[in-house]
Amino acid sequence: MPSKNKVTVNAEPGKQELYIIREFDAPRELVFRAHTDRNLFVKWIGPHGYEMILKEFEPVNGGKYRYIHKDPQGNEYGFHGCFHEIAPERLTQTFEFEGYPGHISLETATLEELPGNRTRVTIHSVYQSVADRDGMVQNGMEKGVREGYERLDDILTGMK
Amino acid sequence: MPSKNKVTVNAEPGKQELYIIREFDAPRELVFRAHTDRNLFVKWIGPHGYEMILKEFEPVNGGKYRYIHKDPQGNEYGFHGCFHEIAPERLTQTFEFEGYPGHISLETATLEELPGNRTRVTIHSVYQSVADRDGMVQNGMEKGVREGYERLDDILTGMK
Repeated sequence: MPSKNKVTVNAEPGKQELYIIREFDAPRELVFRAHTDRNLFVKWIGPHGYEMILKEFEPVNGGKYRYIHKDPQGNEYGFHGCFHEIAPERLTQTFEFEGYPGHISLETATLEELPGNRTRVTIHSVYQSVADRDGMVQNGMEKGVREGYERLDDILTGMK
Repeated sequence: MPSKNKVTVNAEPGKQELYIIREFDAPRELVFRAHTDRNLFVKWIGPHGYEMILKEFEPVNGGKYRYIHKDPQGNEYGFHGCFHEIAPERLTQTFEFEGYPGHISLETATLEELPGNRTRVTIHSVYQSVADRDGMVQNGMEKGVREGYERLDDILTGMK
């Protein structure tokens, strides 16, 4: 179900970074748990209609992850990276799409407590080049983020 | 011994990236091996006069590393990160100094074959902010790189 909480993507021209901002009607503790509990994470990440196969998930500084999104036609899309800082206020990880190897981004998600038991998530992604960043924006990144966060809304509702 | 091959650091004002360029009088195969063989790597990385303790070293895509530099007074400086692409022409890794946690860079070393069995290494480092990058430049990064590469010169001479 579309959420009243909208995804905002800020990508200033010519820079090799972007920001994704989204608010959630749930306290930070639950949002953090949904990012770090593998049984919850597997239920919401990525676009609608894909099967999510979580191969590895070690959300600690120095840990790694790998998952595969499988579309309804059976095509598989692999992603992997490693974690640096993992804390309720900030999660940092790398991200590499295995269909476009050698292009890696460094992503920091800041989880900010808002009044009324709400949370603002700001993802700051740094790319190896402006072209890599622009490619991500043009290739439907926002759709995958928006649809994943719609499922996260539902999971957070269920956790409350 | 100071080398005739100089380290160049290019950090364009206002950008969140920098380039380190250095040539070596050895073929790429040897330079690559010195970056990925733990028994060689441990002998050259970092500034002069420090003991190098390599705790973890898995130079494959998805692997991690951690090492400690110990100065003559016994102070320990830890560094860790993970590897993405590891190939003779390109090595990609993250880098976090444990004395300044939560500030991570993404580093890509390109190894380019030059005439005369020589190799040019270009490190492209991307930081989470311009301030992080400027801090690294101001805090003696170049000295550690220069001194490490002087030891790498000696190791490469010994490998030939």
